[in-house]
Amino acid sequence: GVLGSGDFARSLAVRLVRSGFRVVVGSRNPKRKASLFPAAAEVTFQAEAAKKADVIFVAVFREHYSTLCDLADVLVGKILVDVSNNTEINHHKESNAEYLASLFPACTVVKAFNVISAWTLQSGARDGNKQVLICSNNQEAKRTIAEIAQVMGFIPVDMGCMSSACEIENIPLRLLPAWKIPIFLALGLFLCFFTYNLIRQVIHPYIREQKNKLYKIPIEVVNTTLPCVSYVMLSLVYLPGVLAACSQLYYGTKYRRFPDWLDQWLQHRKQIGLLSFFCAALHAVYSLCLPMRRSHRYLLIETAVKQAMEKKMTIWVEEEVWRMEIYISVGIIALGLLSLLAITSLPSIANSLNWREFSFIQ
Amino acid sequence: GVLGSGDFARSLAVRLVRSGFRVVVGSRNPKRKASLFPAAAEVTFQAEAAKKADVIFVAVFREHYSTLCDLADVLVGKILVDVSNNTEINHHKESNAEYLASLFPACTVVKAFNVISAWTLQSGARDGNKQVLICSNNQEAKRTIAEIAQVMGFIPVDMGCMSSACEIENIPLRLLPAWKIPIFLALGLFLCFFTYNLIRQVIHPYIREQKNKLYKIPIEVVNTTLPCVSYVMLSLVYLPGVLAACSQLYYGTKYRRFPDWLDQWLQHRKQIGLLSFFCAALHAVYSLCLPMRRSHRYLLIETAVKQAMEKKMTIWVEEEVWRMEIYISVGIIALGLLSLLAITSLPSIANSLNWREFSFIQ
Amino acid sequence: GVLGSGDFARSLAVRLVRSGFRVVVGSRNPKRKASLFPAAAEVTFQAEAAKKADVIFVAVFREHYSTLCDLADVLVGKILVDVSNNTEINHHKESNAEYLASLFPACTVVKAFNVISAWTLQSGARDGNKQVLICSNNQEAKRTIAEIAQVMGFIPVDMGCMSSACEIENIPLRLLPAWKIPIFLALGLFLCFFTYNLIRQVIHPYIREQKNKLYKIPIEVVNTTLPCVSYVMLSLVYLPGVLAACSQLYYGTKYRRFPDWLDQWLQHRKQIGLLSFFCAALHAVYSLCLPMRRSHRYLLIETAVKQAMEKKMTIWVEEEVWRMEIYISVGIIALGLLSLLAITSLPSIANSLNWREFSFIQ
Repeated sequence: GVLGSGDFARSLAVRLVRSGFRVVVGSRNPKRKASLFPAAAEVTFQAEAAKKADVIFVAVFREHYSTLCDLADVLVGKILVDVSNNTEINHHKESNAEYLASLFPACTVVKAFNVISAWTLQSGARDGNKQVLICSNNQEAKRTIAEIAQVMGFIPVDMGCMSSACEIENIPLRLLPAWKIPIFLALGLFLCFFTYNLIRQVIHPYIREQKNKLYKIPIEVVNTTLPCVSYVMLSLVYLPGVLAACSQLYYGTKYRRFPDWLDQWLQHRKQIGLLSFFCAALHAVYSLCLPMRRSHRYLLIETAVKQAMEKKMTIWVEEEVWRMEIYISVGIIALGLLSLLAITSLPSIANSLNWREFSFIQ
Repeated sequence: GVLGSGDFARSLAVRLVRSGFRVVVGSRNPKRKASLFPAAAEVTFQAEAAKKADVIFVAVFREHYSTLCDLADVLVGKILVDVSNNTEINHHKESNAEYLASLFPACTVVKAFNVISAWTLQSGARDGNKQVLICSNNQEAKRTIAEIAQVMGFIPVDMGCMSSACEIENIPLRLLPAWKIPIFLALGLFLCFFTYNLIRQVIHPYIREQKNKLYKIPIEVVNTTLPCVSYVMLSLVYLPGVLAACSQLYYGTKYRRFPDWLDQWLQHRKQIGLLSFFCAALHAVYSLCLPMRRSHRYLLIETAVKQAMEKKMTIWVEEEVWRMEIYISVGIIALGLLSLLAITSLPSIANSLNWREFSFIQ
Repeated sequence: GVLGSGDFARSLAVRLVRSGFRVVVGSRNPKRKASLFPAAAEVTFQAEAAKKADVIFVAVFREHYSTLCDLADVLVGKILVDVSNNTEINHHKESNAEYLASLFPACTVVKAFNVISAWTLQSGARDGNKQVLICSNNQEAKRTIAEIAQVMGFIPVDMGCMSSACEIENIPLRLLPAWKIPIFLALGLFLCFFTYNLIRQVIHPYIREQKNKLYKIPIEVVNTTLPCVSYVMLSLVYLPGVLAACSQLYYGTKYRRFPDWLDQWLQHRKQIGLLSFFCAALHAVYSLCLPMRRSHRYLLIETAVKQAMEKKMTIWVEEEVWRMEIYISVGIIALGLLSLLAITSLPSIANSLNWREFSFIQ
């Protein structure tokens, strides 16, 4: 049974019918809504739908849960599946599923399917994420819903008892939580190093020698800033592992929890590393663009003209040549190795490596 | 039971035996073929095999289905699994599975396993695509085959009733259908802009000033064409979303289907976007190659020599310098952002994002 | 039941409890260890735990298997799950699971869960590899463990009978086995071509004309070496397919096994191809860096000065210009096509292509 006639209710009904279940839809206005549902689904009044079905998907907004209280008698002993989502993280004190459970103490409430979009339901599980996170205090009911999810083509994942409902409801609302700190860190480091390089390369020559080097800001200053950020962030990837090892050696046990800041840091290593790679890659592109600039061309021609007018044939400085050759070739090798690291962090490749291979590449 | 002794029949038998099923193979020449099958599988005559088994995989070509009609009596009430594929899309009027069902009205026909190659069957499901698309008019039989597929290590996907058989049979034959229109679109746009740039940069100066600039065709003309294609395609990614929103606002409902052309367009957005990124990336590589060219070098030396002979020291034009610096740095930033977009369109990464994160990155 | 109180035993207990199983842990020192396990798991003496449970995970090291022999009477008829790993590939003559089975002939031994790390067990199956490889001589027991694995959120993969245990135990120890030969091949080819290019570009001019061109080693010599390696490796990708086809034509059958060396070669094609792409990409980056070098700049200025002093205005050589333009544009197109090939070899993309699409792109 499906209570509700919104987008999600429709998609759910479509999918259930396609997977071979008999579906009854409960609507407050079954006549008007019947045309929206697949022909194989029976659309009727809420009370009747609730009577006929054993497993009932509650596809109405949390705000309207209380309107279902009239059905309390019919629903006794049945499994209610809460599929709802909130609009804000931790919007309400208790999760929607727990609220539903408190309204219908005689029912078994299961939280499931909220991480699946109406679109995925309707288009089939061939695209997009296929995991259905399920939690409930009743093992039996959880098993039933897991089996339904499996027949529908999804992969049920058991998330434990009802207290996980809040966590499950927050999943569709999270916005790259693991990236927030690393991105602010990278921006902060960038600003510091940019200011330093700006002073050193532009402001200082202007004050001391009245030379206008403002044109250096968009490319050259940024290009000297990026590798600094990249280096510091790369060291921040490997530092917490060392600290953790020290802490374990100091306390002589690996069962002691790390302090919270270290734990957080350890968990953000992958993101910090990827941002470090992103900065290194940008640095490579910026460096490659240097000879394309008009300023590079003008300086070259001016040097040539000056040499020609002074009748000096040779300008070759062996040390300068070698410095640059080595600098560039080491840079390319470093970028190549970092690329391998970045590629192995793609989920589909990381999953195909065992622990020994992963740490070897690291 | 497996009827047939081709590649697919063998691989199927190998896999079934390995997954712990008892397998009987029906062949027209069991003595000669027995050596091809694993020892644990019993190879016998077709009629006997059909008698012994409850679930029978029909691993023969559609053309030979009629030769099985002698077995009709033995097959009554059994489940026939059609695993066949065609050599052309929509080759026959009715799907192979429906044809089989019409030949054996007393059997339950299930379409399955045709999307799995003999190679995947034999090497195990650890590599390659693991989904087995299943359809049948009989729910019970579908469930049985889904369970067998699961034990064999595949993920069964319920595709509904027998009318989907045609669609399932076309899947192994499709050739990047979602890419056809975007690729022709990109080629068309490329041709248009290429012709325009060719006239403007090569033909026009030749006619007006008799200057031979033909050497510009392979790199410079292509390089001015690519960003035009990229821009137009990028705008074509975001335009249909706007049109769809307008259409929804105009009709005041989101339950009205979009016109077919708009629907098609909406579904090709990802491919158009990736081609746009591909053109942008090529443009970046072409631009980076500009200073490598011999022509760039010659022009530079000629300018320097001219300056030296005219005893002009300065060639610096502040506006030109700034124009180029800003142009390059904006280009790099745009490419960096487009790269992020392209990376999030990788299936394994897209699947790990929720809807809010995906639209944030977009 | 879980025997043992190490990291893996703990994580296993945590996961089993969370998935709704009743868990009893057998430890030699239950009082001291109880605090390490989740509250819902009963921690008691080994004999008692073995008595209470029907399925028993043996989470102790192989070296201590013999200490469990006291429990032999209690364990009669129960399912023992061997979750152990070795520290070296093929360390012992027989696999751990077979050794356990020989110690407890009255039990049913199943090998499973060794490919799952304690970390994956505890953090849930949402990250990392989710396949649990299972083997046993007893189909019934294998089915039971497969169901437990499924409820725990993993994907059970049937690996057949106990003789596969050795293979399964080696999986967490393997270190990129498919990459070893291709990498040594690439290194060997690189060394050969590097020596040749070194002699040709540096040593020969030094001996014949006393010119010091040592500065060319880090970039120019490497840059001429990389495309040679890339070409040879690319041809090694397509050669074995041709050889295999010839062998099939010669013997007139496709059921004859290829000789071992050809089989090995065919299986390494993907890795050889990716290394070829890696060399090609490095070559592209090296080439792009050429105009950034100080030596390039000096040579340019010296040419300009020489021209200016000889009062020669023109240096343009049409053939040289065209040669370079065509060379670069063909290089970019080749790199673009190789990139597409490399992207389709990502597991998540390769899995979404059917055989026809894959061979079309190839």
